Amino acid sequence: MHIAPSKLALVPFVSVENMMRLVHHIGVETVLRELANEIEADFLRWAAFDKTPRVGSHSEDGVIELMPTSDGQIYSFKYVNGHPQNMKRGLQTVTAFGLLADVPTGYPLLLTEMTLLTALRTAATSAMAARHLAPAGSKTMAIIGNGAQCEFQALAMRAVLGIDHVKLYDLDPKATRKAEANLRATGLKISACASSQEAIEGAQIITTCTADKAYATILTDNMIGTGVHINAIGGDCPGKTELHPDILMRADTFVEYPPQTWIEGEIQQMPKDYPITELWRVIAGEAKGRKDPDQITLFDSVGFAIEDFSAIRYIREKIRGTDFYQELDMIADPDDPRDLFGMLVRAGEAS
Amino acid sequence: MHIAPSKLALVPFVSVENMMRLVHHIGVETVLRELANEIEADFLRWAAFDKTPRVGSHSEDGVIELMPTSDGQIYSFKYVNGHPQNMKRGLQTVTAFGLLADVPTGYPLLLTEMTLLTALRTAATSAMAARHLAPAGSKTMAIIGNGAQCEFQALAMRAVLGIDHVKLYDLDPKATRKAEANLRATGLKISACASSQEAIEGAQIITTCTADKAYATILTDNMIGTGVHINAIGGDCPGKTELHPDILMRADTFVEYPPQTWIEGEIQQMPKDYPITELWRVIAGEAKGRKDPDQITLFDSVGFAIEDFSAIRYIREKIRGTDFYQELDMIADPDDPRDLFGMLVRAGEAS
Repeated sequence: MHIAPSKLALVPFVSVENMMRLVHHIGVETVLRELANEIEADFLRWAAFDKTPRVGSHSEDGVIELMPTSDGQIYSFKYVNGHPQNMKRGLQTVTAFGLLADVPTGYPLLLTEMTLLTALRTAATSAMAARHLAPAGSKTMAIIGNGAQCEFQALAMRAVLGIDHVKLYDLDPKATRKAEANLRATGLKISACASSQEAIEGAQIITTCTADKAYATILTDNMIGTGVHINAIGGDCPGKTELHPDILMRADTFVEYPPQTWIEGEIQQMPKDYPITELWRVIAGEAKGRKDPDQITLFDSVGFAIEDFSAIRYIREKIRGTDFYQELDMIADPDDPRDLFGMLVRAGEAS
Repeated sequence: MHIAPSKLALVPFVSVENMMRLVHHIGVETVLRELANEIEADFLRWAAFDKTPRVGSHSEDGVIELMPTSDGQIYSFKYVNGHPQNMKRGLQTVTAFGLLADVPTGYPLLLTEMTLLTALRTAATSAMAARHLAPAGSKTMAIIGNGAQCEFQALAMRAVLGIDHVKLYDLDPKATRKAEANLRATGLKISACASSQEAIEGAQIITTCTADKAYATILTDNMIGTGVHINAIGGDCPGKTELHPDILMRADTFVEYPPQTWIEGEIQQMPKDYPITELWRVIAGEAKGRKDPDQITLFDSVGFAIEDFSAIRYIREKIRGTDFYQELDMIADPDDPRDLFGMLVRAGEAS
């Protein structure tokens, strides 16, 4: 016999398939634009959040991280891995899932896939930052690194900033061909380039999203002219950077959460007195973003828990009244909360 | 159209219902005995584990915690809340779920309910510790606090140590009546007592598992004779203790992971030079457990991530070849790992 779990025991779950259905239902660029706005709104109330650097478990092959945060009413965490060697095995470099919970009771509210959602929120965060930091009227972006994050970056920059030309470069031409084929269908003007140098020529926004776990130098100082915005998202763990430190010496650098960025970001290469500005302060009007057209701005993005919080909460709002989720019997819910054992016994008698 | 997710995308999930089916299939005392052995085996290879105090998000109402660990091959974490006021709302004080993941790839291997499993592993850990610390030939135990953990404690102590008499006391007689009714059916001799004092008379093992978030004094020094083992499991977060410090002055105290126990355990009341012994060292033969029959031993248990690791891994072994799980489409798995966007687009075209 099957004992139906009570309502309290059930946690909504958004599978990968349902996430894809939901994104198509809303429209991918609308999702990116709305996510950028949700993330910006949460950055604006920065002080309301419990903030802590992510908790990483590092191994030779990669890292598994937990990223919790809370605004006092809602708690979220994300499980995410980063394994650069996975691609060679036919696996994702980054996979993720996340949870939203009710702070007053500790009960889970939503479990969701977050591999796709992380790709979306990362691109949305980049675009949200670029809205405050990129040169006015930016139309052309370069994307160095044409892996899983590439197309999301391009569409987010179009959705939020109106970018219409994307220049692609990757060490592996197959990656560029993949991105080019996907992006041509979106109506963006695409240029596949033979070098980083070629890709960044004429670009107002330069996005680096490479996956090697190394102190790489994707961009060197002599490549970077004045008046550009660099969106560096691939340097995101200890020992993994993409920019030559000389670029940082010329740039004004903006970060998410300094205690985490000092460990994981491009600035891990810099002395501790290197000046940085927290992005939320720019959004809140407490600090200047772009000051003049010749300035080089750098968003040294490593990904922060509040962005996941915003994204999971957004999904929770969007699935209300839809069938884009299933319910999981995840919480033991005896009639008398103290009678967990009795629930177990009765289940045995009923079966 | 529905696109079936690939095998790589699927993560086995053990629901509450399936956990109950599995436990009945194996037998609850067998589960407790096997879990005690699994946990002991993992304590024996203590040095192999990544250890960190749990990451807590505290609020007025309670705490939400993440408890990660890894042995370099397998990673686990548990999400668990502790909300003493929940019971009044008809909710569980503690609910939990957990995950096992593959360290070399970061891919999840198993998602499972852990409200029941935590109750089982907590009782199994208590019994495993008592095997090393309780007086030889212990037959009678007292349980102060007859909530959700109570019956599991009694059965674990029978399964592992051969306890045959359980004396119950709770401030709320309804809780005692609930536990008594549940335990009578197991063949244990049960005595419902009118006070803590009455309950601990003649008991070789005294278990305290109360839920108030306060510096409570469930046991005072004058109540405790020589030659007993105290299993204190209800003092498990900052500001929450059960024993008068004078008891600790007379006892030899054993703990799981000192950096966590100093924050959460009974020893949070003690000066930093108070001597403690790590339980794993007793199991490994590096330190003495019980030295003489008159000694008072105290297991100051707060619950540690390695116990959850052992428990989730045990469940993973036990569900192999059974139908006690379902598969969740939790990991995005494009044919080309770099083509996450293409997977999204094709799902839209197919729908």
